[in-house]
Amino acid sequence: MSEFDLIRDYFHWQNPPDSVRVSVGDDAAVLSMPAGRELVVSVDTFNAGIHFPRATPPHAIGYKALAVNLSDLAAMGAEPAWFTLAISLPEADRAWISEFARGMRELAQQHGIFLIGGDTTRGPLSITVQVMGFVRPGRALLRSNAKQGDLICVSGTLGDAAAGLAVVQQGLELSVDAAEYCVQRLNYPTPRNALTDILGEHANACMDISDGLLADLGHILKASQLGAKLEHARLPFSAALLQLPLEQRLEFALTGGDDYEVLFTLPPARFETVKNAAAERGVLFTNIGKVNENIGDLQLDHGLSAKKQGYDHFSAN
Amino acid sequence: MSEFDLIRDYFHWQNPPDSVRVSVGDDAAVLSMPAGRELVVSVDTFNAGIHFPRATPPHAIGYKALAVNLSDLAAMGAEPAWFTLAISLPEADRAWISEFARGMRELAQQHGIFLIGGDTTRGPLSITVQVMGFVRPGRALLRSNAKQGDLICVSGTLGDAAAGLAVVQQGLELSVDAAEYCVQRLNYPTPRNALTDILGEHANACMDISDGLLADLGHILKASQLGAKLEHARLPFSAALLQLPLEQRLEFALTGGDDYEVLFTLPPARFETVKNAAAERGVLFTNIGKVNENIGDLQLDHGLSAKKQGYDHFSAN
Repeated sequence: MSEFDLIRDYFHWQNPPDSVRVSVGDDAAVLSMPAGRELVVSVDTFNAGIHFPRATPPHAIGYKALAVNLSDLAAMGAEPAWFTLAISLPEADRAWISEFARGMRELAQQHGIFLIGGDTTRGPLSITVQVMGFVRPGRALLRSNAKQGDLICVSGTLGDAAAGLAVVQQGLELSVDAAEYCVQRLNYPTPRNALTDILGEHANACMDISDGLLADLGHILKASQLGAKLEHARLPFSAALLQLPLEQRLEFALTGGDDYEVLFTLPPARFETVKNAAAERGVLFTNIGKVNENIGDLQLDHGLSAKKQGYDHFSAN
Repeated sequence: MSEFDLIRDYFHWQNPPDSVRVSVGDDAAVLSMPAGRELVVSVDTFNAGIHFPRATPPHAIGYKALAVNLSDLAAMGAEPAWFTLAISLPEADRAWISEFARGMRELAQQHGIFLIGGDTTRGPLSITVQVMGFVRPGRALLRSNAKQGDLICVSGTLGDAAAGLAVVQQGLELSVDAAEYCVQRLNYPTPRNALTDILGEHANACMDISDGLLADLGHILKASQLGAKLEHARLPFSAALLQLPLEQRLEFALTGGDDYEVLFTLPPARFETVKNAAAERGVLFTNIGKVNENIGDLQLDHGLSAKKQGYDHFSAN
C-alpha cells in the first residue's frame, strides 16, 4: 500500500458527489461541471521550514495546506468543489501521514470539498494543493474592481498569526492563554467561505490577507488604480493581541501576514446588510478605512508605524 | 519582479483563449468550460534527484514536467486546455528560470495548453504541474475498460528512457549517437496527444507508460479483471536499443519506465483503422499481445526475463 493509498483512505466519503465521474486511481480525474458556472482554480505550495515551522503538528499542516487554498476560493466569491493533493515526503511515516490526512479531511468535510486525485513522491516535505470551485459567470470577486468611496472591510481579527509565529520562533512573551490562542490562529486559520454568498452579492473587490494588510490592500489599490486611507484605531484585534503595545500589534496586523481573513471593499449603502449577514454567521466584520481617488497612495493615520512597517514597501511598487 | 513574474513573461500569448476569463495575478484563475464536455484533471510532481538527475538541463526539466502531465491527458483521451505551475526554487537563478520556462513554453504552445496560474516558493527544487483538459461526457479512456480478445498496442518504442538514465547514471556503453538518442528520449518524451481523437474513438482501455510496460499493463489488467499474453519479439525497439543484448533491452522496456508512450487495448476489428491513422500522424504503432480471460495472469513468451524483471512484481499485486 503506497502513501497515497493511505492518504486516500482518509478521504473515503460516504456520499461522493455526482460531479466526480472518475476519481483517484486512473491517469486523471474526470469531473462534471454544473451548467451556468465558471471554474475557479488556485494552487498553493507549502514547504517545511519556509511556510510552516518544522515542528508544526502534522494535523495542523494538513489543515492549513487546504485552508489557505479554500481562502483563495473565498476571496474570489467561489463555491468549493474539488481539490488535488501533491505531497513530497522524506520518508513513509504512517503516523505522520495519518495525522496530516485527518487534519485535511476534517476541513474538507466541513466545506464539502472533495479530493479527486494527487501524487505522492519522495523528497523534502512539501505540499501543493490545488482547489477548484464554481462562480456565476462574470461574478468572480476581482482585485481590480474597487470603487472610489468604497468602505474597506476585513473579517475576523488581524495579526494573531504573526504573533503566533513570534511566540514559536522568537519566544514572544504573552500570557499562556494568549500565546496558545495566537499559535492556534497561526496553525488553524479560518477560511472565510461562510461569507462567499454575501460578498459575491455585495462586495466590489476582494482578496485574502496572506502577506499582511498593507501589502495586500496595496494589491487591490494597484489593480484598481485607486488609493485608500486606513484608521488604525479601527483595526480589529483579539484580546490576546491587546496584551501587546500598540506599535507591536500594529506591526503584526499591517505586515505580519498569514491571517487568511478576507479583505474587501463595499459600497457604503451595502454596509449594514453585510454587517448583519456576517453577524448571523458569527463572523466579526469591521470597516477599517475608505477607498479614495489618490492613485497609489495608501495612508494610515499613524505615521510612524506605517513608515516603519510596510508603507515603504507598498510605495516601492 | 518575482520569479513567477519572470516565468509568466515566458507565457505571454499573442492570442489567449476566450476560455481564460481571469489569469495569473488575482487570488485564482477564472475559466469558462465549453458546453457538453467533462473536465479531466491530473497532477504530477517532479523532484530534483528523484524524478530527474540533478544535472538535467533546465530546458529539459521545464519540457518534461509539462510533458508527463500532457501524457496523462492523452492517456484519458482528453484534449489539453489549461495548466498551473507550482515551483519551489532554492535560489532566484534567472538564467535557470529562463531556460526552464522556455522549455515548458515550447511544449505548451505546440499543444495549445495555457498557463493560468501558479505559485513560486523557496525550497528544494520541485515542480508540480496540474493539467486540465476536456473530454466528451462518458468518453474518457479508463484503465478498467479492456475487453477479452482486445489487441494490446503501444505507441513509439520502449525502453529508450531507461537506457538513457543508465547512460547518465551508470555509464551504460552505447555508440555516441545511440547514447545521445536515449538521453534525449529520457529528457524529452513525446506525449502522444496526437492520437487522442483516434484512441478516443476506437480504444477500450488506455494509460501511459510511466513505470514500465509490465507494471502499467498490470494496472489495466487488474482494473479490468482480465489477463494478457505479450510476445517479446513484437516489442518495438529503437535502433539505439538494438545495439544492446536482448535481455538488457527487454529489461529496459518491461520495467524501466519513463517512456510516456500510450498503452492501450483495441478490438481487433479496429486495428487497421488505428494503424493507418497513427501512420498518417507519423506515430509508430505496434500490437504487442492480446488480452485474455485469465484474471491477473500476465504472460510473456520469454520466461527468464519476465520472471527476473517485473513479472513477480505484478503477481505480488
